[in-house]
Amino acid sequence: MDIQKFFELSAGKWFSQRTSHHLAFKQAESGKSDIKIEMLSAQDPEVIKLCEQYEVDPALAWGGARVSWDGTMEWDQEKHAGSSVLVPIPDPEKPNEGQLLRDMGYAEKASVAGRYVMGSDDSFTLITEYETMYSEERIWFASENLRLRASILKRFGGFSMASFCSEIRMGVTKPQEKAADTAAKN
Amino acid sequence: MDIQKFFELSAGKWFSQRTSHHLAFKQAESGKSDIKIEMLSAQDPEVIKLCEQYEVDPALAWGGARVSWDGTMEWDQEKHAGSSVLVPIPDPEKPNEGQLLRDMGYAEKASVAGRYVMGSDDSFTLITEYETMYSEERIWFASENLRLRASILKRFGGFSMASFCSEIRMGVTKPQEKAADTAAKN
Repeated sequence: MDIQKFFELSAGKWFSQRTSHHLAFKQAESGKSDIKIEMLSAQDPEVIKLCEQYEVDPALAWGGARVSWDGTMEWDQEKHAGSSVLVPIPDPEKPNEGQLLRDMGYAEKASVAGRYVMGSDDSFTLITEYETMYSEERIWFASENLRLRASILKRFGGFSMASFCSEIRMGVTKPQEKAADTAAKN
Repeated sequence: MDIQKFFELSAGKWFSQRTSHHLAFKQAESGKSDIKIEMLSAQDPEVIKLCEQYEVDPALAWGGARVSWDGTMEWDQEKHAGSSVLVPIPDPEKPNEGQLLRDMGYAEKASVAGRYVMGSDDSFTLITEYETMYSEERIWFASENLRLRASILKRFGGFSMASFCSEIRMGVTKPQEKAADTAAKN
């Protein structure tokens, strides 16, 4: 699977259950989120703007995606909502790898590009190195309606967190409960 | 990495945090467990016995492991303790794949053999088909002291659960807290 196909399969609305294992504290924290992933074409002004921000020729991008989320985590009970534009730039020498441009980092709010690799098992791995942090995330499909994500976070050279998300595709026109139920059966 | 190397790296004592996402209920459940993995040689009576039980020539086994666990899950607060002997039998045609013999299944208590594949990314994937269940588990090392496991369970043709474990190696002579703390920094 190439990165474009991976993005296409990811497009849609998802109900995401997230759990973070805080490794040093030996504590787990859960959260839930609605996620929306919309495809963006190469001509989309947001794709072009992001390329320009990273000084990458927009002609190298086939497009990208806007990811929006709206959820809560157990410990703070606050709303976590936001959105981010993602634009993969495949490596000309290695078509299964490349840079992932983002207008907002997941773990820090500064813009930072990650490196992605599409594995031979159709998994997507994203490595992002921030100033004081390192994150590695693996996303894969158990079926077209169940997407899984596992990530680890290093801070100051040590692993601090391991997280896991299970994401069930929500129906667009059906009630959410019903759609999640159907998705879980596929 | 071959399966024997994977077992060798897994040997030791681990503190495991487990989270299960019940997909239809949209609920998460957490648990904690101490896990001990001991290597067994090809001459070990338990390895030979397990091969004989599955009618596999014991000469095909390089050995195996005994996995013991002792933990609790949130919902029932009961002790979950037990142990299982695992013996991988590599496929003569495909050295990275094979059968995994077990004297006890993870998801059901009947004996059942699974199929494993060592991936090119050094991950271990185990697929087990029970009578009314299908489980797929992926285990990989983030570092030599942090082992991650993600699994999905299908019942009656539909995904019912996605689980994730993060396992930190415990020091043998050091106090557990201290060892887990050290491991998390490696």
